[in-house]
Formats: sequence, structure tokens, C-alpha cells
Amino acid sequence: MLKIGIVGGTGYTGVELLRLLAGHPQAELRVITSRADAGTKVSQMFPSLRGYVDLAFTHPDEAHLEQCDVVFFATPNGIAMQQTRALLDAGVRVIDLAADFRIKDISVWEKWYGMTHACPDLVAEAVYGLPEVNREQIKKARLVANPGCYPTAAQLGFIPLLEAGIVEEGSLIADCKSGVSGAGRKAEVHTLFSEATDNFKAYGVAGHRHLPEIRQGLANVIGKPVGLTFVPHLTPMIRGIHATLYGRLKKDADLQALFEQRYANEPFVDVLPAGSMPETRTVRGANLCRIAVHRPQGGDTVVVLSVIDNLVKGAAGQAVQNMNIMFGLPEATGLNVVPLLP
Amino acid sequence: MLKIGIVGGTGYTGVELLRLLAGHPQAELRVITSRADAGTKVSQMFPSLRGYVDLAFTHPDEAHLEQCDVVFFATPNGIAMQQTRALLDAGVRVIDLAADFRIKDISVWEKWYGMTHACPDLVAEAVYGLPEVNREQIKKARLVANPGCYPTAAQLGFIPLLEAGIVEEGSLIADCKSGVSGAGRKAEVHTLFSEATDNFKAYGVAGHRHLPEIRQGLANVIGKPVGLTFVPHLTPMIRGIHATLYGRLKKDADLQALFEQRYANEPFVDVLPAGSMPETRTVRGANLCRIAVHRPQGGDTVVVLSVIDNLVKGAAGQAVQNMNIMFGLPEATGLNVVPLLP
Amino acid sequence: MLKIGIVGGTGYTGVELLRLLAGHPQAELRVITSRADAGTKVSQMFPSLRGYVDLAFTHPDEAHLEQCDVVFFATPNGIAMQQTRALLDAGVRVIDLAADFRIKDISVWEKWYGMTHACPDLVAEAVYGLPEVNREQIKKARLVANPGCYPTAAQLGFIPLLEAGIVEEGSLIADCKSGVSGAGRKAEVHTLFSEATDNFKAYGVAGHRHLPEIRQGLANVIGKPVGLTFVPHLTPMIRGIHATLYGRLKKDADLQALFEQRYANEPFVDVLPAGSMPETRTVRGANLCRIAVHRPQGGDTVVVLSVIDNLVKGAAGQAVQNMNIMFGLPEATGLNVVPLLP
Amino acid sequence: MLKIGIVGGTGYTGVELLRLLAGHPQAELRVITSRADAGTKVSQMFPSLRGYVDLAFTHPDEAHLEQCDVVFFATPNGIAMQQTRALLDAGVRVIDLAADFRIKDISVWEKWYGMTHACPDLVAEAVYGLPEVNREQIKKARLVANPGCYPTAAQLGFIPLLEAGIVEEGSLIADCKSGVSGAGRKAEVHTLFSEATDNFKAYGVAGHRHLPEIRQGLANVIGKPVGLTFVPHLTPMIRGIHATLYGRLKKDADLQALFEQRYANEPFVDVLPAGSMPETRTVRGANLCRIAVHRPQGGDTVVVLSVIDNLVKGAAGQAVQNMNIMFGLPEATGLNVVPLLP
Repeated sequence: MLKIGIVGGTGYTGVELLRLLAGHPQAELRVITSRADAGTKVSQMFPSLRGYVDLAFTHPDEAHLEQCDVVFFATPNGIAMQQTRALLDAGVRVIDLAADFRIKDISVWEKWYGMTHACPDLVAEAVYGLPEVNREQIKKARLVANPGCYPTAAQLGFIPLLEAGIVEEGSLIADCKSGVSGAGRKAEVHTLFSEATDNFKAYGVAGHRHLPEIRQGLANVIGKPVGLTFVPHLTPMIRGIHATLYGRLKKDADLQALFEQRYANEPFVDVLPAGSMPETRTVRGANLCRIAVHRPQGGDTVVVLSVIDNLVKGAAGQAVQNMNIMFGLPEATGLNVVPLLP
Repeated sequence: MLKIGIVGGTGYTGVELLRLLAGHPQAELRVITSRADAGTKVSQMFPSLRGYVDLAFTHPDEAHLEQCDVVFFATPNGIAMQQTRALLDAGVRVIDLAADFRIKDISVWEKWYGMTHACPDLVAEAVYGLPEVNREQIKKARLVANPGCYPTAAQLGFIPLLEAGIVEEGSLIADCKSGVSGAGRKAEVHTLFSEATDNFKAYGVAGHRHLPEIRQGLANVIGKPVGLTFVPHLTPMIRGIHATLYGRLKKDADLQALFEQRYANEPFVDVLPAGSMPETRTVRGANLCRIAVHRPQGGDTVVVLSVIDNLVKGAAGQAVQNMNIMFGLPEATGLNVVPLLP
Repeated sequence: MLKIGIVGGTGYTGVELLRLLAGHPQAELRVITSRADAGTKVSQMFPSLRGYVDLAFTHPDEAHLEQCDVVFFATPNGIAMQQTRALLDAGVRVIDLAADFRIKDISVWEKWYGMTHACPDLVAEAVYGLPEVNREQIKKARLVANPGCYPTAAQLGFIPLLEAGIVEEGSLIADCKSGVSGAGRKAEVHTLFSEATDNFKAYGVAGHRHLPEIRQGLANVIGKPVGLTFVPHLTPMIRGIHATLYGRLKKDADLQALFEQRYANEPFVDVLPAGSMPETRTVRGANLCRIAVHRPQGGDTVVVLSVIDNLVKGAAGQAVQNMNIMFGLPEATGLNVVPLLP
Repeated sequence: MLKIGIVGGTGYTGVELLRLLAGHPQAELRVITSRADAGTKVSQMFPSLRGYVDLAFTHPDEAHLEQCDVVFFATPNGIAMQQTRALLDAGVRVIDLAADFRIKDISVWEKWYGMTHACPDLVAEAVYGLPEVNREQIKKARLVANPGCYPTAAQLGFIPLLEAGIVEEGSLIADCKSGVSGAGRKAEVHTLFSEATDNFKAYGVAGHRHLPEIRQGLANVIGKPVGLTFVPHLTPMIRGIHATLYGRLKKDADLQALFEQRYANEPFVDVLPAGSMPETRTVRGANLCRIAVHRPQGGDTVVVLSVIDNLVKGAAGQAVQNMNIMFGLPEATGLNVVPLLP
């Protein structure tokens, strides 16, 4: 049994981690911290967990996280980088669901996140936790930077095209749509029910923090920079990301075969039959990315449709997948949740 | 391993059965029938099941249901009563998720359902599958009439009050609200997205088929008829029933203790702490009824709030619970799905 | 042209007032105040009003409200009572959309609202602005207390029954369901999209501030106290209240005729044909209450279904209706907005 | 007063026409036809119109449409082309909200719509009713082809760029998202509430009927063919289209000024300030297109965000606008409906 700690479990990625770990046969949830809610039972804040999670929130000062095998940070950006070194020094492995360790270029990170980084050397050590790209390194990692939700959906869609060298790298477009839970559980006017329902809008068109993360990931694949236009949108659903990805073909290829072969051995990437259009609800609650590839009207524009549940394959589920890999467990342990439809 | 057949698996209770059985360690799904969709892969109709269910729909004539241990009917009313006798004769146990065997008084059933009943003797034999009331009989049953969704939520809320004899039996009120999936997967105008979204309405005020079912269940508890006003409403959510139940108190009682004691040993009924107000999302996807009891302003009206997922504890989950009981399996086998929140 | 001021126009009742007044041919919107957003253009906060409202928010200290003919308070409770006397003294008429002047019994008000009242004498003067009851007094009023949303829906449904003396006054039940906009535009966790969507819950069962308001209104109708159980619920839609009202009949009556006669001359109350079930969307955006009355199964329980748009007939629309009455305009001026369906 | 007939008013564009015409001071609604619902009161099918529209549906054979000044077709494709010639011959002007007269190349139309066209000569005569392009021709038209919803949003966004000659014409991308009402009021499984809620999907990626319409409109602007990839998506809201449009810049330009100048005199196109991101709800119920133009990260990709209400500027509102133009009325007559927010 893995002894598990969670830092900051009062947001949506936190409660999702709890849901998944409550059903994980090798996970023993030892401690979950919250400064503001110390003493409160987890199941009081999230009554869905009554009967499944018996813990109360612990004050960070009394958490003894160093006694855990692995600690998840489900915190705002800038927290994990303050606490990770001590944990690593104590032999604890760390998975950060925030962005502290995702961007290798510290100056880029500091520009987009508006803070000075506390531990650039750990950024260098951290492994970007996209198993479909970095599985071998994740196995040995002490510190995993769990990918963002948009970056997961976008990278999994673009990677086969870039690896095969068949699209222009300089003019990629990622038109992405996210459910509202991606904005977190913080009380803000623009994510109120009465603001976000029956509405659709773009946001962050001038620049979104996931842009450099996607660019970095794609550049790593081909060993040179990519040009990417990334437009995120807010859509009135709770969970789900739908990435519609556009690239200009440089040469011909059997796109369907390309995608099927790339992900043939991936347990959590499902390439749909030719002509399919994936729906976000078909991955609701599950650690899955479903993908389809199209070439409309036989033109030179390839269109990839990639869907995930932003809280699962885009956050907590991928974190558990990374944990399984890091500790040598079967990769799907605790992740065999059938999507909830309807 | 139980060999399982499903008749009519193209509606919401059918796909929900498939979701739950796909995760049930003792269930071997042998056959699922559909006249219209024979040959189609289940996962083509419900892509959420890709990777979990490999079956195709089988034409009823080729289904060999008599080789199953148990057959679930997830069909419109009036189908199960045509096929049940042959299955029972072949030694197959039957769980009907429709209403064919729920009402003991054949004339009442025929009036509300507008058909002649095909096998009144089997109605007499059938056990009403509300485990919290009939667990012992379910163990021995060949044929279980799985309760309706509203009746499950309403009965579980009223039963402690009636058993204790503290409410007037003649003036019960059940003001119930259901998500739209309760109306099924049939294409109809009034359940279109653009009709049901951002809207709230009552329906069936003059009389709804679940009225005689609830009345029968409550009358059985106290051995005499009850007076009940039942008003169902359609609310713009996919899953969930919220029953707000009103009764006039005849004498004083510790209502909280009453409910806690009644359901102390029930694995799927959760009595919330005093003062709580259950939310339907806290049971989303799970075989749970969460209940709270209130006495507003200390008056003589008791208010019970009872929530279920209409497709789980109100249909497919309760059916699996009944199957577990019938076959001597631990009652929660395959039903430990943590609710999906948010 | 009426010179109009609005205090506190950054919430939902405020923007709704702006929407309606923008189309009102006799209204000249002079000033709208906001301490926090002074200087911001109204249409920047509410881009729906671009092209319709050109004003910017004014700091309260520079608003010169005393130059208006009428001032609307669309503020939190406790604000209007601080400023009303000065306005009345300056000859300005006041319509308060909050609760400061609704409850005649000051001690009751202070208990439910948790404040000391600043001007009990003005409470005595204020007219409760339900035109279907108090039209004549509204005509002469300097100060109108605009009713709450639940109280509007509930009172309009109960009044015909109580006036006719055909229901027991001691055991009324109001099971009410509200859209989320009723909770206002303040950032709070429980009204976030991801919390309120695909969910249904009761709240305030132990006691809600609209309970004494409804009780007062109904008691005034019959000249003696009423017994009322009021259970509000939150339903995942933006706008709309659906009140399901229950009473026990003391004697027989032609319920349909009773309601039709009571509201025969009311421009904003629509009694539906017998057997109807009103949908909230049929009043979306309009100053209408649609009502149906039922007697299920011919029993002794009468069920009234009453729907309004909580922001219109339940708030801003009724306020404009009151303004029209106060200033001798045709009552429907500016209120002929056709409901938006779908 | 214009005498108005509507053919086929039982769908969403029909009821929307009724809503708008009910508030149009120069419109006298004479007849509305429906074969299936002849004799039914319009307000029985659409209770939102109780008190606003008193007509009943008339059987087509008894409609005497030839006595109208103008007839709107709110019918499925293929109906208007059967009846238009007789109406024109009788001196009636016709506005078709379906697609029968939109595509000038008959072979293209027949390929995409799967029918033989009944009157190619009238297609040649018909004016494409996008006032921002064809206002002068609309004034004199006997027959107007009212544009599709996606084509309206996409063309208004692309036109300034193409007219200015600053984007590559061969690689345009229109990533469009539509509310569910765009699919109409026909009962179909995929638009059921329980299917479309909390879900997002692309559809018609291989080819959608609005693709040739957009291509034709854009080609007309520049006098040569354009290359366009068009991907429509279904988003869980009732009303609204959000078009996210991408083009590759060929030369520098002041994009903001370009758009502002192009639409300076357009009453129903609102160019938002630089940096804005339009929300669909800001046009809900109104005949408006709000547009913003961006150049993310200063790169060579221009991104235009264009929103409309698909039932208003994308259908019925634009039809009324065309009627106003055809009959010399002020263009905004009856169209000053303030958007409904929230």
C-alpha cells in the first residue's frame, strides 16, 4: 500500500484525486491538508465522498507529509515549488498538478506566471508527466510535473502528425473548448452559473499560460520550435475538453493508420474509427483521451479532434497514472472507471 | 460468474446496466438484445463503453436467453410480461426494470398502464425489489419487480415515519423533481435540449403511473391505505431525483434518531446529519439514497428530503443490488462506484 | 419623461431594470450609482447593453438622486433604509427592490434580517408593491416595497383560495423552485456553474427570509394568521420560479372559475386553461405570472402551479409596473416584452 | 401595415418570427400555416405567446397567402421552391428562411441538398439577404434568400479581411460553435436534453451544407474562389453561434480600424473595442452580430470572434430586417429588442 498525502484538496482536482484514490486498491490516503479548513471532515465539504473518505483536513504544519510515499500538490501555482525540496530530501516522491515544474525555461515560466521561481534546479530535474511521451523517465522520476488539461488534449492530438513530419510546424492552430470546472472552485463572478450557462466565449486569446507549455511539448517532439495559435473557449458544461486541431499537410499520408499505430499500445488513448467525431461525455469521469483524425473535403488541412475529461486525463487521473508508473504498479490500477453516460 | 442477459439495452437504464455490469467482478455479460439494432456493436451506439463492452446487439430470436442465470428487462412496459414465464420455466431468474410486475392489484395496473396483463399469476409471485423492505423475500425470488425511480425515493423517505406511526396517513404529499433522463432515450419534442433546458415544469399532476406504486408500497408498510398527493416535476439536469416529502405529525418523536435507526444497517441509504440538505449530485452515478429529515419552525409538518440517481438506485443500480441479493453475493458487489462530483 | 435613478445597478436586478427601462418610452435613465465601479461604463460590465445604455456608473456622492422623479434601490438589504428619508424629503418617490420595507412588524424584520431597522416609521408608510392586491395604495405611494420573488409567486397562487375561504389556513405548503439568478451576482462557491449545474437541492428549510413575507401577505388577505411550510429549492436554470402550492380544501368550489374571475382584469396574471401545467420558460424575460389550479384525483388537496421570471415579475418588472402605477402611466408601458422561447 | 403570412411556423425559426412580429408596429400577422396542426391555436403550442398571438394554424390549402404583402417560409428545405413562383406571380414578396435560394450554382445546391431544384430561374433572381453586403439589391428584391446561421456569423467576420486583401484566400478556417436550437425542433435522439447536455462535439467535419454557402459569399466579395475549412460544433446552450475565424495575414494592417470602418454604418453589427471577447449571451434574443478581431502574440494569424443569436441575426431577425428593407421601413423597426442577460 502506498502512503499518500495530498496538499490542498479543496478544489476540483483535489476532490477528483480523492474520488479516484478512494477506489484505488493500492492507495492508502494518509493525509490531506488545508490551512483554511483544518479539522473539517472532507465528506462535509464534499458529501459525495460520505462513506468513501473518512479523513478530515489537516493543518499543513501537522501533516507529516514526509512520512508519505508520494505527495500530490493540488494547489494554486507557486505553492509546490516552496515545499517540494524538503519532501524530496525526505525521500518522498512528488506529483505537482499545478504548473510549477512544467516549463523548462525559467524565464518563460516567470513571465507567464508572474513570479520568481523558487527552485530552478528542480525544474531541470522534473519529468513532464505525459506518459505517452515520457513513460520511461516517469518510472524513475522523483518529481513529476503533471501536464495541464489543454496541453494534454492538444499534444496528444498533434504528436502523431509532428513525429511523422507531415504538417507545417509553423502554422498550427489549436481551437480548444473547456468545461467550466477547468476554472477551478474559486468563487468568481465569471464562472457563476448565471454567467456561464447558455453562453459561449473565447478567453485568453492574446495569450494563455498553456500556450508555452504546449509549444514546449511539441518542440520537444521535433527538436525545433513550432508556431502555434491557441484559442481557448469556455463552454457551458462541467467537465470536458474538446480540442479541434488544425495543421497544413506537407505531404500525403494514411492519417488513420498513423494515429492508430502511434497509440496502439497506449491504454488511455483511444483512436476512433475513421469518420468519427468524439464527444466529451464519452470520457466523462474516465482517464481517457479519445481522438479522431479528418481531412475535410480531401484538402491540405488536417483536422484532429481530441477529447478528455479535464479533471481526469487532464489532471487527477493522469496524476494517478503517473503514480502507478512511478511505483511500478500496473498502469491502469484504480483507473478502470467506466465513463458516465448520459 | 453469473451469466447475464439484457433484453432491450438501447435506453438509458440499459446503458446504465452495462456500465455497472462492466465493473462487476462476478458478472459475465452474455447477451444483449435489440430488434432494431441487431448486429450493431454496443460501443458504437454508446461510445462511452468502447474498451469496456465488446458485445454487439443480438436479435431476440437468436439470443438464447434461457442459457443465462439471470435476465434483466430494460424494456418498455408490457414486454417483460410476454417473455418471463418461458425464462422462469427454463430456470432463469428475471429482474424487470419496467413496471409489469410492480402492482399487485391487476385491475389497478391495467387501468394505469392501459393494457391487459398477460400473466397475473406471476405478478402474485413477483417480489417488489426494494431491498430495504423486502430483502429476505428477494433472496428467494425467481422474479423481481424492480421499483420505479420516484417510488424508490418517496418510499425510503416516508417509511420510517409510517412505521413509527407518527404521521397522518391520509394527507401525505410527495413533491418530486426528476432529471430528464427519467423520460428515457426516445426522441420526443418535450425532452429536446432546447425544450427542457432553462425550464421547470410540473407534469402528470392529475395522475402519474408511479402514484399507485407508491401508495401500494406505503400501504403495505402500515397495513392500510394511505392518502397521497404526488406531483412530479421535470428539472433541467440529466440525472437525479429529489423528493420533498410532507406529512403532518400526530405525535412527537426524535425524527433524526428514528431515521438513523431505521437505516443503520442499510448499505445504500445514508441518513445525513440533522440540518442537512442533500444534493442530487452527491449520488450521481452511485447506488445511494441520501436522506435528511426536518421539522421547519418546530411546527407539526415534517419534511423529508430524499435524493437518488434515478438511473442507479432508481433503476439499474437497484437491479444489480437485487441480483446480488438473489445470488447470495455480497450486496455491494460491483456497486462501489464513488459519486461523480462535480 | 420620468427622470430615473438607480442605486446599486451591478447585480442581476439592476441589469434587468436597465434592460426594461431601456425600452420604456417614458423613462429617462439619469443616473446609476456604484461605489466600486464609479466611472465604468454600464455597457462594459454588461455588454448586452452596448447600444442601449450609454451611462457610466456614478459614485453615490455625486449622483444627485434628489433631482430624479423616482429612485430604484437594487441594493443588498439594509441600504435603502439609510437613504430613503432624504429622498422622500426631496420629493423623490422610492421603489426598494430589497427587503427593507416589506415587513410591517419591525421585530420580525430585525430577527430575520439581523439588523436594527433605521426608520420604522417609513416601514409603516411604505406600500407593499403587489399590484394585484394593493393597486389603489400604490397609486398614491411615496415609497413602495417591491415584493420578493418567492412571495410574488406564492401569494398570487394562494390568494384566490384564501379570499374564497375554501382552504384550511393552518396547513399551507409552498414547495418552491428557483433558478440560480435569484441568488444574485455575488461570487460564491455554491452558485458556481460547476456546483449548481446538473444538481438539485433544497435550502433554507429551517427558515428562509421570504417565509415571514409570504405569511404577512396571506394573513392580510384573510385578516388572521396563516400556517405555512415553505421549502425553497435551487434548480439548474438561470431564470424562473415555479411555486407548487398545496392546501387542504374545506369546501367544494369551481376552482378554475375562481382563479379566472380573480385575475380577469389583471394584465400580468394569466390563468391557464384547466389541466394546464405552466412552464417557467413561457414567462422568460416577461412581467407575467402564469397560474394553473388542479385537484389531483378529485381529492381534498388543491394544487396550484404558479410561475414567474424571478428577475421580472419577481423583481425588476414588477418594480417598473409599480412605477407606472405610481405615475399614472398605462400599467403595461415598457412591459410588453414577449417571452423568449426557446 | 404589412399583411404577413408564415408558412410552417411550428419550428424554432417560426416561433421566433412570431415573437418578433408580435412586437413589430407595422406588421399584421394574417396567417400561419401548418398541415399537421391546422386548427390548433399558436399559443397552445407555444404558451409563451399567450396574450401576444391570437391566431390558429391554418391548413395550407385555406391560407390565401396570395393576399399577403410578404410571405416567410420557415419550412424544411425544398418546400419554398415549390410555392414561390405562384406567390411572386400574385405580387407577393417572399423571404425564404430555408436554403432553397441561397446557392447560385444549381449543381452545387443539388449535390449538397440531395434534390432536384424546382425553379433554377428563381434562384438566379433571388437576392442573398445579407444586408451588410446586398442592401441595395434587397430593397428591390421580390425574393430574398435569407442566409444560414453559420454563414451569417462567418461571412461578417471574414468580409473585412477579404475586402482589404490582407489574408491568404486559400487557407481560411472557420471553427464554429452552435447552440442546440440550430438543429431545429424535430424530435431526434442526438438533440435530446440527456444527450446534448454536459457534452461538446464536432459534427459534419467531412462536409456541412453551410460550407458551399460561406464559400460562395466569400468568393463574391473578392471575385475569386476561396479555400475554407469549416468545422461546426454542437455546444450545450439553447441559442447562440460563436465563430472563431482564422486567416493568415499577407500584409500588415490596423485590424481594429479596418473592422470599425467596415461596419461603421451598420445598425446590427457591433465591432467591440480592441482586446474584447464577445459572449453569445450578449446578443441573446437580439438581431445583432458582435465582432472582435485579434492578432495573438503579434503573429501572422488573425483571429476573428463573431457571435450572433442563431435564431435572430442567424434567422428570423435577419428575415425581419430584410422585410423592413424590402418595404422601405426603417431598418430597425421591430428589432429593438434588448438582449436578455443573464
